[in-house]
Amino acid sequence: MHTWDQLFLDVNLATMRDGSTPYGAITNGALAISEKRIAWAGSESELPPYEAKTVQRLDGRWLTPALIDCHTHLVFGGDRALEFEQRLNGATYEEIARAGGGIRSTVQATRNASQDALFDSAMVRVGTLMREGVATVEVKSGYGLDDRTEITMLEVAQALEENCSASIVKTFLGAHAIPEEFQHDADAYMDFVTNDVLPEAHERRLVDAVDAYCETIAFSASQVEKLFAKAKSLNVDVKLHADQLSDCGGAELAASFGALSADHLEYTTAIGVEALASSDSVAVLLPGPFLILGETQLPPIDELRANSVPIAIATDCNPGSSPLCSVRLAMNLATSLFKLTPEECLAGVTRNAADALGLLTDRGTLEVGKRADLVEWNVSHPRELTYWAGINQLHRLLINGKVVG
Amino acid sequence: MHTWDQLFLDVNLATMRDGSTPYGAITNGALAISEKRIAWAGSESELPPYEAKTVQRLDGRWLTPALIDCHTHLVFGGDRALEFEQRLNGATYEEIARAGGGIRSTVQATRNASQDALFDSAMVRVGTLMREGVATVEVKSGYGLDDRTEITMLEVAQALEENCSASIVKTFLGAHAIPEEFQHDADAYMDFVTNDVLPEAHERRLVDAVDAYCETIAFSASQVEKLFAKAKSLNVDVKLHADQLSDCGGAELAASFGALSADHLEYTTAIGVEALASSDSVAVLLPGPFLILGETQLPPIDELRANSVPIAIATDCNPGSSPLCSVRLAMNLATSLFKLTPEECLAGVTRNAADALGLLTDRGTLEVGKRADLVEWNVSHPRELTYWAGINQLHRLLINGKVVG
Repeated sequence: MHTWDQLFLDVNLATMRDGSTPYGAITNGALAISEKRIAWAGSESELPPYEAKTVQRLDGRWLTPALIDCHTHLVFGGDRALEFEQRLNGATYEEIARAGGGIRSTVQATRNASQDALFDSAMVRVGTLMREGVATVEVKSGYGLDDRTEITMLEVAQALEENCSASIVKTFLGAHAIPEEFQHDADAYMDFVTNDVLPEAHERRLVDAVDAYCETIAFSASQVEKLFAKAKSLNVDVKLHADQLSDCGGAELAASFGALSADHLEYTTAIGVEALASSDSVAVLLPGPFLILGETQLPPIDELRANSVPIAIATDCNPGSSPLCSVRLAMNLATSLFKLTPEECLAGVTRNAADALGLLTDRGTLEVGKRADLVEWNVSHPRELTYWAGINQLHRLLINGKVVG
Repeated sequence: MHTWDQLFLDVNLATMRDGSTPYGAITNGALAISEKRIAWAGSESELPPYEAKTVQRLDGRWLTPALIDCHTHLVFGGDRALEFEQRLNGATYEEIARAGGGIRSTVQATRNASQDALFDSAMVRVGTLMREGVATVEVKSGYGLDDRTEITMLEVAQALEENCSASIVKTFLGAHAIPEEFQHDADAYMDFVTNDVLPEAHERRLVDAVDAYCETIAFSASQVEKLFAKAKSLNVDVKLHADQLSDCGGAELAASFGALSADHLEYTTAIGVEALASSDSVAVLLPGPFLILGETQLPPIDELRANSVPIAIATDCNPGSSPLCSVRLAMNLATSLFKLTPEECLAGVTRNAADALGLLTDRGTLEVGKRADLVEWNVSHPRELTYWAGINQLHRLLINGKVVG
């Protein structure tokens, strides 16, 4: 006899289990929860003998794993709405940079902001994501670019984790850009990040993973290698902003370090895709900045599919290239811009997003033993979650088996 | 001494009044309401002597006119999520049409739906729009394509008006497509629409305006002319789906009938733009279907600007080419896709959207005498309403001076 805390009946399950039916779907299903974990999931007709403290009939609604946003920069000071407007009014990137715009304006605003102000504005964004069914959010540092502010950003991420029901995954991105203080010596800045800031942040238990921006306008592959070697010596996973604006060999670099993920990938070549396929790295695609920057070079979708590289999708929520705070919208845009299918989009914000955070054994599908992070939706099929833009069909979000919205 | 029902102090006003400061902005402003109308709007320092029943300080928040969605097809049966998925899985348009997909599947589902079911699903969409600050929604018929169902759709629109706080503007679009029953005789169908359906719908007071789809795959300019002549004889305003997929002379046709608006306009030529400029027609741009259909031909934005044609933006919410139910998202997409400025986007869903519905003297700007349809926003500048995608900074929506959300 099974003994469960909760049992859901009259429900359809999009388990998102890999390699089964489309969406891993089980119609006329049942799902049981015990001690915050999924204790049983399957066809209602196959339920074993059980006792359940509460039994709820869900009127045939669909359950999916809770959504996961696996790539965000949602802690930052200020915004870049003025620069956004100036650009649409015809200002060039150079004019905006000369006027103090670009990422450096966000670095300045973040350094100047109080920790409370950073927390408050970030919590609005986390709350916005949660209201559409997100239970796990990755948050990067990278707008401090000095010791104090990088640590502060990660402390804000930690405070978000402690003050909301969602899980916050903290990524150290000290190597996001070259700060003004080091503008003629990227090597010296990378040494500082590698040998001073990362060890301190790690010592304070603020680093779940290390990320870097490998690009002609940021850091070279050889500079990133030093940082990644240090991360590995600390036993910390790595991931990479790779090949967004040019082919820098980013995918190969990420794969060679067994990165959790390689992100962006617009200019990744067949060689890069093969490298990802031979590692366990996830390809994280980001339709937000692709749209907002007006990119035309598509990531190598067909090659990723052909090589069975798991594809995740994320918002890249940030004040410059992606002022977008909706996983549902990222899913929808990934169909229009990247021609991903609705099932790929949902897998991209559940199973593969969990994989991109190294959390696939813990969440991302509806399987026994995983966290009971679930969304109950007002849809007649999970494909509608990608089809509609701007409608939130969330009925209930459960995190660790408890209703949070 | 002025006597007001309500007075808002410590507020910034984006009046959206034409030809004044950017956004018609008045910082440190005040706004008074009496009998559901704006009774005073200006700088707080210039307030005349007054008595007000209630005075509210808005902590420096911004007020804008309530938003207006001036082009939707949000009453319909079923959805087209399956077809959306099939297309992304590689099915051709022909395969989908052969399998009963396309607009005809929506016509079938709408004919088969009960009036209550049509009302219920449409009300979800109207509610979604209202939650982001929309107070006026245009709703078209056009999925009945028979006498009974076209009337039913307009009755549903009428029921929406009677059962929610938003204004619903009813547009007769019997000439949306050629139904199967008439598939080899578009002229006969247009005669039926013109001489039977429109007069009946008009007689029942269900027609605020008449619309048609002028396109190679729908109706020719000469067919539409007959319908528009009838509309004019009934003293009903017209508008047109014009030049979306090819240059059919739609803009010229709309202008020649003094249409309220010409909508889509991707293939409109300089001659068409000049025709619009010489009429009072508004150009309604629809970034949703542009994105979702993967269009590349841009509407003639610069020519519209140069000729001072007012530009409105709308969702085109419909189950086929624009499953998008967010005016805010349409604004954001209009920057990425059409390079409109944030101010043009906000004007496009306030002042110019009111103009496109023939309602500019009644709403669409914060000016004395207009309806007190207002949104109070949690933003530090109205440009943020276009900059952010997926965040709803609505603080309060007032319709006719009353808080509705």
